[in-house]
Order: sequence, then C-alpha cells, then structure tokens
Amino acid sequence: MNNLIKIDGFIGNAIHSGVKKEKLDLSIIYSDIPCISAGVFTQNKSCAAPVIISKENIENPIQAIVVNSGNANACTGEEGLKNAKLMCEKVATQLNLDPSTVLIASTGIIGKQLEMNKILPGIEKTCNDLTVNHLEKVPTGIHTTDKIDKVETRQFELDGETICINGFAKGSGMIHPNMATMLGFFLTNINMTKELFQSLLKEITDDTFNMISVDGDTSTNDMVIGLSNQKADHPLITSPENEGYKLFKQELFELLKNLAIKIAKDGEGATKLITSKVIGAKNKQEARMAAKSIIESNLTKSAFYGESLNWGRIACALGYSGSDYDLNAITIKLTDTIDTITFFKNGVEFAYDETIGKKIISSENPIVLINLNTGNAKATAWGCDLTEEYVKINVQYG
Amino acid sequence: MNNLIKIDGFIGNAIHSGVKKEKLDLSIIYSDIPCISAGVFTQNKSCAAPVIISKENIENPIQAIVVNSGNANACTGEEGLKNAKLMCEKVATQLNLDPSTVLIASTGIIGKQLEMNKILPGIEKTCNDLTVNHLEKVPTGIHTTDKIDKVETRQFELDGETICINGFAKGSGMIHPNMATMLGFFLTNINMTKELFQSLLKEITDDTFNMISVDGDTSTNDMVIGLSNQKADHPLITSPENEGYKLFKQELFELLKNLAIKIAKDGEGATKLITSKVIGAKNKQEARMAAKSIIESNLTKSAFYGESLNWGRIACALGYSGSDYDLNAITIKLTDTIDTITFFKNGVEFAYDETIGKKIISSENPIVLINLNTGNAKATAWGCDLTEEYVKINVQYG
Repeated sequence: MNNLIKIDGFIGNAIHSGVKKEKLDLSIIYSDIPCISAGVFTQNKSCAAPVIISKENIENPIQAIVVNSGNANACTGEEGLKNAKLMCEKVATQLNLDPSTVLIASTGIIGKQLEMNKILPGIEKTCNDLTVNHLEKVPTGIHTTDKIDKVETRQFELDGETICINGFAKGSGMIHPNMATMLGFFLTNINMTKELFQSLLKEITDDTFNMISVDGDTSTNDMVIGLSNQKADHPLITSPENEGYKLFKQELFELLKNLAIKIAKDGEGATKLITSKVIGAKNKQEARMAAKSIIESNLTKSAFYGESLNWGRIACALGYSGSDYDLNAITIKLTDTIDTITFFKNGVEFAYDETIGKKIISSENPIVLINLNTGNAKATAWGCDLTEEYVKINVQYG
Repeated sequence: MNNLIKIDGFIGNAIHSGVKKEKLDLSIIYSDIPCISAGVFTQNKSCAAPVIISKENIENPIQAIVVNSGNANACTGEEGLKNAKLMCEKVATQLNLDPSTVLIASTGIIGKQLEMNKILPGIEKTCNDLTVNHLEKVPTGIHTTDKIDKVETRQFELDGETICINGFAKGSGMIHPNMATMLGFFLTNINMTKELFQSLLKEITDDTFNMISVDGDTSTNDMVIGLSNQKADHPLITSPENEGYKLFKQELFELLKNLAIKIAKDGEGATKLITSKVIGAKNKQEARMAAKSIIESNLTKSAFYGESLNWGRIACALGYSGSDYDLNAITIKLTDTIDTITFFKNGVEFAYDETIGKKIISSENPIVLINLNTGNAKATAWGCDLTEEYVKINVQYG
C-alpha cells in the first residue's frame, strides 16, 4: 500500500475491468463535496478525447476523476469522444453527480476504440467500493509500463490547521517536457481561490514535470490535475504574497518535483537517474533549454549507460540547445554530491581524476553541473540513460 | 574502389597516420587550379576548430581540403585552433599554396588534442602521393563508425561540355537536421559564379542533409563543402534562370539527396531506412517539421525496428511536431511503393489489411505518407530505426 494521507472527504478505488490483462486498469477518485481544480494538459495536436473533455470540465467545480489505463482513447474520432463522455456520465449516474463535475484521463495504446462493454460495468464496480483505503490502489491502477508506484505526500500546519497533499503520478516511456506521456494528480484541503490554484500549478509544472524527459516523445494524453476540497478551516488565500500561499507553494513544488523525478527514474529500461543543473544562463528559458538538451541527447544517455566519461557529448548537446554562451567561459562538472570532477574549463578539457570520475558516473544518480557564465538564470532537468532494454520494451508495446 | 569520375584537375589521397587504429584517417583533396567554393556549416555553439578555420577560408579561392578522422578537434580551445591552423599550413607548404586556400574538416572524439606528431608527418606522406586514383580512397578515409562508403556521381552535357560531379559523405551516429555529424563533399567543373554556387548549396542542403536524422544529435563538426574548378568550357552561369543552372541544380539535388539517404540508411545499428513524406502542409517550414518529427521519434523508430503496425506513434509524433492540422482531416498511410495501406482517416483508424501492412513494415524501405490537408507545401525526411545495436555502439564510442 502507498501510505497516502487520509484527507477528510477524499475516497477512491481501482479495479481490473478487463482492458488490461490481469492488472488494475480503472480508477476513480471521489470528493464528498465539490472541489476547486487546476489542470495542465498536453500540447499535442493529436490530443486524446479525455483531454478534450477534461479541458472543458476543469472550469467547473469537480467531484470525481475517472482514469483508465491500457487504452489512450486517442485518435479515435467522434466515437472516442462519445465514449469519453459516456464514461463521465456513467460515473455521474453512479455517484449522483452532474457529468460536468467529472474529469477523465486515459493512458495506453493510441487509435483503438475503448471496450465500453468492459469499461461501463467496471465503473459501476469501482463506484460500489470507494473508500479511503481503496484510494491507495489508484497509483497502481494508472500504470502502463510503470514498474513502481509514484507517490508523494506532504503535511504542514497553517493557522492551526493541518494542510495535507496526496500526490501520485504515472509515466515511463514517451516522457518529454511540455506535458509528456504522464498523468499526475494531487489532492489537498487548502483553502485558496481557484485562480491562484490554477496559476500555481502552471508555474510549478514548468519547473518539474516539464523538465523531465525519457525519450523525447510528448504524448497525446498527458495531464496534471489538482483538486482541493478547501476543507482546511483557515482564511481563504487570495494573494501570492500570503505566507500560507508561499508555504503551500514550497511544499507542492517539492512534491511535484519528486513525482517528476520518480517518473524519470522509472524511464523504460533505465538504470540511472541523470540530473542536469545549469546556472549562469542569460535567462530562464535558455537555462531550461540547456538543462533539457543534456538529458534528451541519445548520445549522452547512451554514454551514461555505458558509464563512459564522455563529456564531449555533453558539450555537443549544449551546443545545439539554442542557449547562448562563450565556449571559453563555461564549466562542465560531474558530481554524485560526495565527489565532484571538472571536465571542461577555459575552453579545454580539465585534468580530472579518472578513478573518481568513474566512481561518480557509475553511481545511480550522477549530476551534470554546467555554468554558462553569461547571466543569473538557472534550471534543473531530470532524465535517464538509454539502454538496450528501452528498445526491447518499445519494439512490442502499443 | 569507389568509381569516382576522373574530373580533370582533381586528385587526392588518404593514408593511415596512426590517430585511428589501422584504418585510413587522413585525407587530402587537391585541385591544380584555384576553385570557387560553397560551404554549409554546423550551427552547434560548441563548434570545432576546423569549422572556425574553414568558415574563414571559404571566402577565398580554394585549392585543397584536408580531413582527419578519429579526433574531432572540438572543445580543444586555443591549442585546438592552433593545431587546425598548423594542419592547413603544413598542407600549404607541401603543395606550395597559401594556407588561406586550404579548407579543413575533422570528425571523431570531442575534447582531445590532436596528436600532431602523427598528423604532420601524415600530411607530408599524403601529399607525396596525390593521384586521380588515390582520390578514391578519400570516401573511406573520412569514416568514423561508418560501415560503408557513401559515394554518388553525376555526368551530363551542357553546351557540348561534359559536366561532372563527384560527391562523397560520411556520417553514421549523431546525425540530425541542421548540419548533423556528417561531412559531405562534392567536386565539379561547372562554370558558375561563386555567389550562385553558394546559394545553390544552401538551398539544396535544407531539403537533403538537413532532412535526415539518425539520433537527433547535431554535431560540433558538420560541414558540406563544394568545389568547382570551372574547367568546363561553357559560358559562365550568372543567373538562376539559366537552363544550365537548372540542369546542374537538378543533378546536384539528386546527388546530395542520395548521399543523405545513404547516411540515414547507415545509421548506427540501423536495419531500415524510414522515409516520411508530408504533403498538404500550410507552409514549407511546417511540412519539414512534420516530416522530421516522424523520423526523429524514438518511439516510432523502435516500432519500425519491431515491425509493429503502431501508427498511433506516428500520429503522436505528428501531434508534437509544431505543425498545424485538423486531426479529422488528415490521412496517414504506409507504403513500400508496391502496396499501400491507409492507417488513419476521418479522425479514426482505417480498416487495413494486416498481412499487407506487415509485409510493408517488414521491408527495408518503408515510407510513411501523410496528408495534412491544410495547404500545398510538402517535404520529405529520412531516418532509420532504433535498435539495441545503436545503444551498444554508443555505450563505447567516444
């Protein structure tokens, strides 16, 4: 079990409907009162039916989220859209809600129609057994090729009230900045305006989920959804200057960052989490581009898998990132947080201890440190190594 | 041997200097008179010393090109720049030229200083044996992980004169649009102004070398160089409206396109050449983005390797390409030029014959056909499948 916090008012369940073989494939999250919501969605032009529906419904107060895995319901035309609506309607009927208060997410194979003869009875079955304990099945119910559950929780005091956040996500292959094939959810009880809640999620997503990459493919179905039932009995937060806002922002940032890292680490076939930290960039955008370029490069990813001290590939990926710098002014380092070696300085290779270098690159969490020395902006990106196993997984999976 | 055309005035040689183990690693091309030249260079910010030198010298009449493989002389600072200059000077001394008339290209590992104690005697040795027959060794001398020579030739009549073009290229991994890790050269005798010669190369490169991708990594060292000794005795071509210009453009386009395809096909570990043809795009830029997105997607590349009829990944890659379209208006097809199946039409999967589909995707040259139905622009891109072998090669190579 996933040790979610028991937040008053949130229950859920995940069952096996039959779309996937044996595994849990249908999940529902339910709130006993309407919630404010925040959502960030894929920018893929071939976006899926559930994305279209959820982008509409997110404007409303939300009381339930239904998620199926095994079938993305993407590139499925009018029938796919009708099926996504039917799923929301079925949830609404079972839980006595208006269908416009239900969000929907799907993940799995693209281009196949949903097996509604499995999904609809599945929704009924899921709704019949919603409990606070069964909510803990949801992080597993949303898996595709994921090997592990990705769960993070936070709890802190605000004006004598306990603010809780339960977060969980899925994502393994097809992960890439700008809403990758991943689903992320968080549930909380903070009392904040919907406008702030939405802008906060957007801001944090740009530095967390949008800074990870497994294979450079941005999916048709990605979304991150937050719900708050506002049950914490503190004064409504209406300004980003509010101390409670700042505290919540810090906690939510750490929570979503850790979920994003868990996704990068669980990349298909991956053996290492690679972190790329860029400082001294001209502006935030260039810092992000530089950091991401390193962890997106197939050549760099292969070198990390091979534990080869091939910093030239890092310099090369930096070179086509689109960020500005003077090659003679930058430094490239590698660290495992215990030891650090400098690869590149003053325009040339820097003499480094190969034994220490080998130790660092052989660790499970090597970190590339780059100082562009052209400004004050910084960014961090997370990725994984590229292995034969990635190819093997993706040769077969839908 | 590579069966280059014997163009009056061009000779060359390639030898083993010792930078690489056993293989040819140092090549020189020489013209008995100064040539007009055209060049297109990598946009990588970490561009190599030879790129810096050649970008300067390309403004001058050119009489020689020196190419070393095994070491890219990139990220090598002042010493690297000094060494690249020394190489040009050594060639000039041996051949009694001004160093400013010598171009230089390098390919291989990044960040290591050149072993000048091998390179300088190597240049002397190479220059001592320049012949028209030894020029045929150059396509091999420029290899890195290349498995085969990439050579194309053309010959046609213009005003009673025989116009010849010898083209050759190298490139295997780290190949990506916008001047990938590849070197391309062509030698000709056409009589054209330098301005036309340069603008023609730029135009053709955008639809040939810049439309291939092996792994999405744009290298520090890429360049395409053309030389013409203008020995063909026809009137000087001064306008793009000239019939001779049009004829030469067509021949050079086909030659460079075929070289680009040979590079994509020889991608590290590749078993298939994947072609992606997009028509009906809003404009040329969007057509190129859409075509390239398909052949750059790791997921699509893995699916082709697995010979899995996974058109959803094509729709997905199209979706994040940045090109505009209406999902309900596009069609996605697959062909081996003998049979064609339609995967996607009217917003949904189209019923296709799986046996024929399997036959097409199992061919060595499957072609994806996409009609975006939003305009009249079109583009073609070439790539290869992603295999376990790619990872194996890149785990080790510098």
